[in-house]
Amino acid sequence: MARVVVDVMPKPEILDPQGQAVARALPRLGFTGISDVRQGKHFELEVDDSVDDETLAKIAEGFLSNPVIEDFTVRRIGA
Amino acid sequence: MARVVVDVMPKPEILDPQGQAVARALPRLGFTGISDVRQGKHFELEVDDSVDDETLAKIAEGFLSNPVIEDFTVRRIGA
Repeated sequence: MARVVVDVMPKPEILDPQGQAVARALPRLGFTGISDVRQGKHFELEVDDSVDDETLAKIAEGFLSNPVIEDFTVRRIGA
Repeated sequence: MARVVVDVMPKPEILDPQGQAVARALPRLGFTGISDVRQGKHFELEVDDSVDDETLAKIAEGFLSNPVIEDFTVRRIGA
């Protein structure tokens, strides 16, 4: 078994209202020095060693993200 | 400027309906070997070098996560 992390983020040219709301709220709350916040999704999958990287990319692209507006990264973090 | 990543995940004892929905759908869609999926949030912050780790932990705990039901990790990924 391996643990696989898939991070899904809005593409840079896509507006991110959730992230902007956090970024605008922080100075009001007394936290300065944060110039940008973007919010995406983080998935952790428990995966058999038989599952190859191509299959993981298909899962990430097809079911965990919307490739029109989001980018994803896949990484294995343990054996 | 540094880039800071905050990952927020439901605590292990908390049900995760979104993750379970993905985990149950994958075999139907022809993907086997994925035994568990958990879904959380992924934040990327652009942060001045003057912002210390304690401040980042306060932001993550207070505004990016709900510490009753979620765990978070903070890591700096670039200078």
